[in-house]
Amino acid sequence: MTVALDAMGGDHGPAAVVDGALLVADARPEVEVVLVGAPDVLAACLAERGVAGRLDVVPARQVVEMTEDPARAVRAKRDASVRVAARLVRDGRAAATVTVGPTGAALAAAVFTLGRLPGVTRPGLAVVVPTPGGDLVLLDAGATVDCRPDLLAQLALAGAAFARARLGVDDPRVGLLNVGSEQGKGDLLRREAADLLGRLPINYVGNVEGNHVAEGGRADVVVTDGFTGNVVVKCLEGAARSRPADDAADPDTGGGGVLLGVDGVAVVGHAGSSPSAVAHCICAAADAAATGLVDRVRAALADLVARRLADPDVGAVAP
Amino acid sequence: MTVALDAMGGDHGPAAVVDGALLVADARPEVEVVLVGAPDVLAACLAERGVAGRLDVVPARQVVEMTEDPARAVRAKRDASVRVAARLVRDGRAAATVTVGPTGAALAAAVFTLGRLPGVTRPGLAVVVPTPGGDLVLLDAGATVDCRPDLLAQLALAGAAFARARLGVDDPRVGLLNVGSEQGKGDLLRREAADLLGRLPINYVGNVEGNHVAEGGRADVVVTDGFTGNVVVKCLEGAARSRPADDAADPDTGGGGVLLGVDGVAVVGHAGSSPSAVAHCICAAADAAATGLVDRVRAALADLVARRLADPDVGAVAP
Repeated sequence: MTVALDAMGGDHGPAAVVDGALLVADARPEVEVVLVGAPDVLAACLAERGVAGRLDVVPARQVVEMTEDPARAVRAKRDASVRVAARLVRDGRAAATVTVGPTGAALAAAVFTLGRLPGVTRPGLAVVVPTPGGDLVLLDAGATVDCRPDLLAQLALAGAAFARARLGVDDPRVGLLNVGSEQGKGDLLRREAADLLGRLPINYVGNVEGNHVAEGGRADVVVTDGFTGNVVVKCLEGAARSRPADDAADPDTGGGGVLLGVDGVAVVGHAGSSPSAVAHCICAAADAAATGLVDRVRAALADLVARRLADPDVGAVAP
Repeated sequence: MTVALDAMGGDHGPAAVVDGALLVADARPEVEVVLVGAPDVLAACLAERGVAGRLDVVPARQVVEMTEDPARAVRAKRDASVRVAARLVRDGRAAATVTVGPTGAALAAAVFTLGRLPGVTRPGLAVVVPTPGGDLVLLDAGATVDCRPDLLAQLALAGAAFARARLGVDDPRVGLLNVGSEQGKGDLLRREAADLLGRLPINYVGNVEGNHVAEGGRADVVVTDGFTGNVVVKCLEGAARSRPADDAADPDTGGGGVLLGVDGVAVVGHAGSSPSAVAHCICAAADAAATGLVDRVRAALADLVARRLADPDVGAVAP
């Protein structure tokens, strides 16, 4: 099981990423990590730690910077580390890719290089939120900020497949994040999506509210637009950091976000990831590949594709 | 200083509301609470507590139920407690109104009975969020879930006026809740609003993220749409409840939400408010009236009205 690690992203530079990879090499020898990035920098990094040659390095001579327009930069930089890492997955040389660089760049590289699964208009970013009521999957955590009802339907199907693989829940309860628990609540997007979600082959439990995301227990999968999802995830991380006694909510243990709807396993960690957070992302990526995540999501979405053919109202693709 | 209290709302029934009013009567004798609701029920409530006649009762023979369409119910029920309480403010018999009934009903009663201030298309619900970095004002916490850029501009002006009155900050920093700190981030609503906010006579500090709302320190006022705001506030409340050691985030101490943009002080507390939470709402309402909140918001919005006349691009009113 090989994981291609974009070693050039992240606030702490290649050193923190390499240290994360070395943690995995020690703890899970069956996971082989390939470092993707500037060969001299990465070789020096390994040599400094007295483990020269311990990890393979695949050269990539460009980097997508935090300040660049991610889609444009990924398109322009053929040799960007995030894009080279995705290429290793596309070419079958790695089972999954991990980056702690900009989410937008990870998304663009995944869509551009791996491609979308049939039925997917835009991929979603799924994160596991630890709560007192148990772990839940929240998506979209920020891949697509302008959302349509059909995208929420895709996220619901993909999120349920992810929860089965990641949380080991047979028939995950899927909830729609909303401002009230009663039917008919919410903005136009939610009111339109509720009807659509109710017609999907998932265990749809209706609306869940912000407190349910923090407390857990109501749903295994919480579906929302990428704007709200991003704000909620950062909000919970901020609340957890304000009360550092609470290990369960430590973002370092979360394993990053998984891009769902692309044809390959792609994990995006925090830019501020510590070595242990990077290691958790690598393990999450390896586990996703091992449990056949992409095929599970493909199968879940195939149903949407079939229904769309039968009933154009279901998941009509936005222009 | 008289506060008209809708005594019929809330999950715990009139008893919890009456107990809240009695706490205020003891602690702040200068605040006179008038109970609005079913006279026999309220008289019995006071008699049971051995304080028959201690608080004035204004009769209201109807109630807006949690399950009703709030706008329709308020319009249909002329004698609903939430509407009668607002009428006392309109008629100058009370300086402020408080309810722990449905937010939608409070909003409808305020707009219907008190009216909107000039320049306001929809009122916003402002709440005070306690954070390790100090209190901040978040709005809209759920009054209007479908939002437009011009509404965010109104909220920014009204929120700054509220922060000056409530937090005692001279020149409050106003931030736009967004998915990243860089300019140009966000969905269409945020990208359009950022430009508008930058042209208002406020101390606009640009984007703030979810973690900044939880941790504080970046902005005194955080502006967002009512959907995201509602989710964030409930999320933080849920996180606080999950860690009950944290008194600062106890929703009971927050004093409810204040409707900004209506011509009167209207405070909305949690449906689940305890007597002490009801008391905090009553005090927040009395303090808002005492600090001239409505005139402050009116003055802040007058600037928007003037600019709109001069430059139709600023705060163009959505259809």
